[in-house]
Order: sequence, then C-alpha cells, then structure tokens
Amino acid sequence: MEWENINTYAKQWVKEAGVKIRSSFSTALNISSKSNANDLVTNIDRDVEKFFIEKIRKTFPQHRILGEEGFGDELDHTNGVVWLIDPIDGTLNFIHQQRNFAISVGIYENGIGMIGIIYDVVHNELYCAMKGKGAFINEQHIPSLNETNVHKAIIGINATWATENKRIDYRKIVPLIQNARGTRSYGSAALELVYVATGRIDAYISMRLSPWDFAAGVIIVEELGGVASNILGEKLNILEKSSVFVAKPGLHQEILNQYLLK
Amino acid sequence: MEWENINTYAKQWVKEAGVKIRSSFSTALNISSKSNANDLVTNIDRDVEKFFIEKIRKTFPQHRILGEEGFGDELDHTNGVVWLIDPIDGTLNFIHQQRNFAISVGIYENGIGMIGIIYDVVHNELYCAMKGKGAFINEQHIPSLNETNVHKAIIGINATWATENKRIDYRKIVPLIQNARGTRSYGSAALELVYVATGRIDAYISMRLSPWDFAAGVIIVEELGGVASNILGEKLNILEKSSVFVAKPGLHQEILNQYLLK
Repeated sequence: MEWENINTYAKQWVKEAGVKIRSSFSTALNISSKSNANDLVTNIDRDVEKFFIEKIRKTFPQHRILGEEGFGDELDHTNGVVWLIDPIDGTLNFIHQQRNFAISVGIYENGIGMIGIIYDVVHNELYCAMKGKGAFINEQHIPSLNETNVHKAIIGINATWATENKRIDYRKIVPLIQNARGTRSYGSAALELVYVATGRIDAYISMRLSPWDFAAGVIIVEELGGVASNILGEKLNILEKSSVFVAKPGLHQEILNQYLLK
Repeated sequence: MEWENINTYAKQWVKEAGVKIRSSFSTALNISSKSNANDLVTNIDRDVEKFFIEKIRKTFPQHRILGEEGFGDELDHTNGVVWLIDPIDGTLNFIHQQRNFAISVGIYENGIGMIGIIYDVVHNELYCAMKGKGAFINEQHIPSLNETNVHKAIIGINATWATENKRIDYRKIVPLIQNARGTRSYGSAALELVYVATGRIDAYISMRLSPWDFAAGVIIVEELGGVASNILGEKLNILEKSSVFVAKPGLHQEILNQYLLK
C-alpha cells in the first residue's frame, strides 16, 4: 500500500516536471538558434531537481535523494528509501534536438529497485515499473522480453567504444559490433534502457554512467526479464559510477561470455 | 507552376501512404510479437510503392520512377523528371521499433534535385523542400544551417564504420569519432539526413546507400545551405549506389580535408 502511494506521487510529479520542461522551450526554440541553450538546460535541470526535492521532502521526509545536480543528499549507504533523479537525461540531445531526452526517477529500498519511471517528455511516453507488478508505457502493459542472440540483435552502443579508449579494450567491442545485426546510438541512457525494455533494441552497453542515469531503467528492464549488470557481469550499485550492460535473457550471457569477458 | 503542382500531389500522396502504413500496424503490434514482422514490412513496402507508381503514372505519365521494391523503371540516364521512392526507409527499425522509419520521395529533373519529401510517419512530421523555395517541417519554416567544426559537432555515423570494413579505411573514421563532441546512429538514412537539415546532428556519413535512400534528403539539406557529396567529396549521382557524406557548411570541408581525404 505504501509503495502504491509512492508510485502514484512519483508519476504525478514526473508528469508535472514534464510540463515544466515542455513549457521551457517554445516552438521557436525547436529549430532556431541554440546559442543560449547551455544556460537554458542548466537552469531547467536545477529547477526540476529542486521541484522533486521539495515534493519528496514534504511528502516523504524520511526518504533520501540523490540527484544529478547535487541538491539532494550525500549518499554513503543504501539503507532506507532512496530516490535517484536525473531531471534531464540526454542533455546534449536536449540542447541540439529538443527531443530524445527523458526524466529518470528510480526509487530503491535498502539497495533494491522498487519503482522505475522514465518519461520521454516530447513524445509524452511514460515508462514505469514497480517491482513484481509489471511494466507499462503510459497505461499499456509491456510484454516480457524473449531470448535472442547476437546475430539477430540490435545493440545500443556508442561508436566511441569501438575506438581506443580508457574504459574498455576496444578489441572486445569490435567483433560484437561486426557480428550483431545492427547497432544504434541515441544519446540518452534512460531512453536506451527503455528501448531495451520494449524490445526496440536488444542490448545496451555504456562504459560509464552515474547512478541516476541507470537507476530507473534497470528496474524496468529487470521487471520484464532482462538482465542488468556492469560489463564484468557484476551487480550494479547505486552508490557508484559504473559501466552498464543490459540485455535480453540469453543475449546477456552470450555477450558476456563470448565478448566482454573473453 | 508545374513544380508547385507536382509538389502538392507528391505531399498529398506521401500523407496518404503514411495513413496506409500507420493503419498496417495495430497498437497491439507496437510492443508485442515481432514474429511476422518481416513479411508484414515486405508487403507494406510493396503496396506503398505500387500506390505511388499508380498515382504518378496516371497524373504525370511522362515521369519515370525508381523505387526500392523494383516496380518502377530501369534507369540508365537522368533526363526528364525522375521520382526516387523509398516506401519505408529504416526497415529494421520498422520491424523492431515501429518508429524511426520514414517515407522518402525525391523528385529530380535532368539530374537536379527539385523536390524532397521525407515523412516521419509515427511522429507525423513531414519534412520537405522545393529547390529555391525553402524547407519546412510540416508548415514550419526550417532556418538555414550555420557553420560549425568537428569539436562542437554531433555526427551521425554507425559504429560499424569504426571497425575494419570493406568500404573505407576505418583508421580515417576513428579519429573523427574521437574528436567529435558526440556520435549518434538512428538506422534510417532519410531521418538522419533531415536530422542534419534541422541541426539536430551536424553531419551524417554512410558508406553505402541506394539512390532512393538519399535522393530526398540531400535536396532538403542543400536547400538549407548544407553540403552533400560522397566520401571523396564528389557529386552524388542518382543512378548509382554510393557513399553519402552530408554536413553543415565549413564542417563538410573540415571533415573532408582533415579526415576522409587525409
């Protein structure tokens, strides 16, 4: 009952935050000058995070909050209820495209993901899951994920990781890209995670994300039978920056064994 | 006057084709089983191409037609008026995502691009340009493109081209990916071309496209001051498969000189 209550509030606040963000860019901005876009996004990011913090503090004073903009709490343990908030995931897309960004809110209890909400503001698509209660796009039920393999898979991965970099030996990534059916890169971890959840892509790999980037998405993916870990196959931890590797069942094991750990 | 007339018909038919495509996948298909998706897309592709051919033959009997599905004409010269039609650009996205695909219609006269229309069916966004008359999203004017440089640029390029392949020496692509502000890959050439036209990305590079993939997009990009060529900087030819490299002014020259021709 408590979690239903939290879920109701969280979704309502996310929707309200979406209205704030939408009203912040006029139609004119959509395709015109981007010169002040950096300042704009910083201000909106901060305003939206403060909006969430105010609501949460008032309604659930015991809950703790970790937000990208740093107005929440310092976290050194996962006890109790923790909200992880990214007001605008995909900032560069927000600036350049005014689309392909999302609000991401994950709620954990003692380190376990309970509620994940990701809101594609521009397309008015709200993705959410509550642990053990299924996952939804708006009011529509999302079916569970089926197994697949690399040769049939579309993998969300940025081209950077196929070039020499300090996070992973790119020679592990190159054959994965070459063997997959295709690759995509959208520039918003939250959206790429719900793309896995809805089967639009089959896996997503990123070498360095903050907890607020992945907190909500992994809850939604896991609720549908997908598997989430770091690139070594280890459990994700909401106290740390981390690589993130999420995939359909079967595919996760195959990529881990045949590519990432090889 | 003749071209205004052709433009009016072309946009109307594209919209009608969009209705056909939208009605072909029910809400249920959106996120459910994809098992028959391959057959479905093949059938829709064919139906939509035949729909265009019938309309064009009846209204403009002198015009010739080049379509992906092969129901049009065999083309060995560019004289007269030629329609280049891709009923569903981004087939894999259509199957896996039921989004991020587009109808692409380019109309050329004696090899010169006159009308480009790209319709993002799911988001109901129709991008179009008529040579010398400006470019539009739905009824909204798209502003001209500004100059930029690699360090500020988001580049549309698939990760495949950063790995060993038979189209280009990947060692030319790797430093470009590393020096750019970011990269994206959406899996539909037509949409990636209008993403350049609208400034959502700054450049787009693909190593092998068919004429119907790029015919419409390059007209829209060039109308806004963008530059289109193959990866050697040569003019595109609507009779041939080709690499395609499209970018904002300034950026096109920089990428060509500092990366692709280096």
